[in-house]
Formats: sequence, C-alpha cells, structure tokens
Amino acid sequence: MSSMFKKVYYHDTDCGGVVYYANYLKYLEEARTEYLSQKGIEIKEMAQKGGLFAVKCVNIDYKAPARYGDTLEVTSQISKIKNASLEFFQEVKRNGQILVSVSTVLVYIDTNFQPQAMPVDIVKKLGQPD
Amino acid sequence: MSSMFKKVYYHDTDCGGVVYYANYLKYLEEARTEYLSQKGIEIKEMAQKGGLFAVKCVNIDYKAPARYGDTLEVTSQISKIKNASLEFFQEVKRNGQILVSVSTVLVYIDTNFQPQAMPVDIVKKLGQPD
Amino acid sequence: MSSMFKKVYYHDTDCGGVVYYANYLKYLEEARTEYLSQKGIEIKEMAQKGGLFAVKCVNIDYKAPARYGDTLEVTSQISKIKNASLEFFQEVKRNGQILVSVSTVLVYIDTNFQPQAMPVDIVKKLGQPD
Amino acid sequence: MSSMFKKVYYHDTDCGGVVYYANYLKYLEEARTEYLSQKGIEIKEMAQKGGLFAVKCVNIDYKAPARYGDTLEVTSQISKIKNASLEFFQEVKRNGQILVSVSTVLVYIDTNFQPQAMPVDIVKKLGQPD
Repeated sequence: MSSMFKKVYYHDTDCGGVVYYANYLKYLEEARTEYLSQKGIEIKEMAQKGGLFAVKCVNIDYKAPARYGDTLEVTSQISKIKNASLEFFQEVKRNGQILVSVSTVLVYIDTNFQPQAMPVDIVKKLGQPD
Repeated sequence: MSSMFKKVYYHDTDCGGVVYYANYLKYLEEARTEYLSQKGIEIKEMAQKGGLFAVKCVNIDYKAPARYGDTLEVTSQISKIKNASLEFFQEVKRNGQILVSVSTVLVYIDTNFQPQAMPVDIVKKLGQPD
Repeated sequence: MSSMFKKVYYHDTDCGGVVYYANYLKYLEEARTEYLSQKGIEIKEMAQKGGLFAVKCVNIDYKAPARYGDTLEVTSQISKIKNASLEFFQEVKRNGQILVSVSTVLVYIDTNFQPQAMPVDIVKKLGQPD
Repeated sequence: MSSMFKKVYYHDTDCGGVVYYANYLKYLEEARTEYLSQKGIEIKEMAQKGGLFAVKCVNIDYKAPARYGDTLEVTSQISKIKNASLEFFQEVKRNGQILVSVSTVLVYIDTNFQPQAMPVDIVKKLGQPD
C-alpha cells in the first residue's frame, strides 16, 4: 500500500464549496502513478515501449466532501492482478476519515488500444496483490 | 430520455491522444443538468432554496476512447427515484457506438450536506423513471 | 468575427462561487477553433499534416465574474496575421456586458514545436484580419 | 521569492503531447498560495473574514512546452504592492530552463467582489516587494 498527500486548491473546488466530483479522479491517477513508480514501474518508460494502462472501469463512493485548504491522504493498493489487467483499491481520507473509496480496473493496452498480456518485467515488478 | 451533443476539444484530451477519463464526468454533469432542466428543474433555483443534488456514487465503464474533434452524444435517463435520491443511467456515444456507460446516484441534500426527502414540487416534476 | 455561446456548469466554477480564472482559457480555445473552422481551417486535418497552432502568449483582463448557470457569449476576431503567427482578440460577455477581454498570439509550429511559415492554403483561408 | 515543485501527470496534458496552456494557471495559483502561506497569509482564514484575492489580469508567455513526467519548479515573487492590489511575477522552469513566465495582478476584494484597501495585518505580513 502507498500513501500520497494532496492539498486542495481553488482549482479543485466548485461553487458548491467542495471538491468537484471529477477532480478526485485526478488525485487517484496521481496516486496510482506514484504507487507504480515505487514498484519500479514508470508509466513514461512503459509508454515509450508502446504499453499503457487504460482505465476500464471506476466504481467510486463519495461519503463526505473535501473542502478548500484540506490536506488529503490518498491511499492506493492493488487488490487483483490478472494477465492483462489490474485492480486498484484507493481511498481519500482527511485526518483518518474516509471521504471517498474507489475501485478501478486498468487494462494493459498497446498503441492501438488493444488489451495485451502484461510484459514479464512489469508482472515481476508488480509482485503480489497487497 | 434526453440527449446532448458535445464536441471534443484539446482541453478534454490527454497526452495518450484520447479524452481523459475524468473529463467524461464533466459531460455527464452537463447532460444531467440539461435533462433536469427539460423537466422544469433548475439546479440554480433549487440551490437558492437550499437544496442540492450531490453525487453519491458513480459506476463507469470505459469501452472505447473518444478523440479530439469527435462529436459525442450523451444520453441521460433516470432509472430509479427514491425519497431522497435519484439514479441516472447515461451513455456517451459516437455515431451510435457506445464509448462509455455510467450509472450515477445523486442524493438530495440541504446546505449542511445532510440527505433530505426531495421537496414535493421536485418529485412531481421528476415524474416516473424513464 | 465569430460568436459562440457557452453555459456555465459546476465544473467551470470554484468555491469562490464564480468561474475559475483558468477555465476561461478553455472557452477561448473552443471559440478560436470554431472561428477557424468557419474559415475552413480544421485543426485536426492540420495536425494530421504535421502543423499546429501553439499558444505563445496570452494577455487577459478579468473585469467581472461569471457565475453558475450564466450563458456566456465568446467573440473571436483575428487582429493580426504574420508569416508564422496569428493574433486573436476575444471577449467573454454576458448580456452584452464584457466580463473578460483577451489577446492571444498563436504560432504555427511543426511536430518538433519549431515555428514555421504558415502553409499557403491556410494563409488563403485566413484572409485579412477582422 | 518562493519555489514549489510540481510533477506533470496525464490530467495536466493534452493530445498535443504537452501540458495544456490553461493548466499552468492552476500551478500558478498553487504557488502563489504557498508563497502567501509562507508569509503567514492563509487564503482560507482571509476568506472567512470576508476578503479574497481575485485575479485581475494575467500576462503569460509560453517559451517551451512541459511534458508528461516532467518535474517543474514554479517560482513566485511579488513585484509590486499597492493599496488594494498585488503584482506577482512567476516562472515555470524545468532543470533551470524557463518554460513559462507570467505576471499576474491580484485585487483584494470583499464578498461583493468590490476592491478594498488591504487590511493592515495583511499589508504587514506582505512586507516589501521581492
């Protein structure tokens, strides 16, 4: 499991006074990227070799709103690993309170957006689900 | 059911060459707003009376990517109506092909972000699920 | 001169209750794209031939804020045409009141992001400054 | 002068393969907020007392594009202080190379979006221009 901290700025919020619901998906992207990087998987290098993780589906629950100035913790863990796909479970917390919980399936694709079995070195670096 | 058209611009896309996964949620917000407006429910007036629809959860499937310059159709229908919540089913299509399908639960809340039974006039305007 | 209309949604606004200052630049991109399209210049086709308009500088004045639910008019005109660059003058209005006025310089670049003289057919389609 | 670091993620980029021109304005907001915070000025507390810094104008030059995976330095300094306004000068750099340079005027406003002389404690905390 990995953990990332994000501070909420004006650009994250909407006129309801809280973080706009789509913007959590940006935090989640950042946190997954950092998680993979900690495992030695760099999206940029992977892309240069013609591979990409595309988001296949997102199931997201919004439990309580985050607000301007909040410092949020975004946790990431991998809950499932298959041949050509990964499942992440992520939470967004403020002072330990869970604001958002999410599961996301990523599919490994080539440059034609076709699913492919993940390369051996990626599989090795991923290791076991958390 | 209602239908809205969106053209894809640079700001919608990412360096993978396709629409960024979070940006569909903006299209979906717009389409729900127009759907409700066609039923006589104006979010702005509702907010001035102290009511708001907050997104409670989103289940979204990405089937195929949209690209720069595409014209997308976003369809919206209400699949469930409860005391204090609504469920939308929405699709994003390009020339009839379904790119994204989504169900979203909205909760009616007051200014303290507490769920409330929907006011009678809103319930009347909503009518039956599609 | 061309004119485009935009409705303001939640995703455009921030917790100050108004349109977030960076989001006007998205409206401006859309309006420039439509202006060029009306002159027969399609960004997508241009890109497929290896050409791109990159934003070189933006001078933007914010005179009054736009709010949720507003319908905005975005006007676009070309104020200058040079060998390898264009200058747009654009305004964002609400009921005729100018909220934002902007001038933007675009440079014509190749796929290596190097400035190039604009192709003859583009120059012809652009015609004279407004 | 203060300095902040930002990593570029997918959500920052567009299908041109570079950071979308409007997204730098988000980095700039973040960097100004951190600059002010280092001087003891917290936007959130200021807002609770009814004051706000609104962006009045932005002059931005794009010199070279930032790309996915880049780590950017955003520098901020105050170049001018008046009764009711501030001028920031900011740069976005990658390994010392200036990619973007910007000057931004912020006006101190009340909750009715009317310009006001800045409160004495804010003026004291700001001190002299850099």
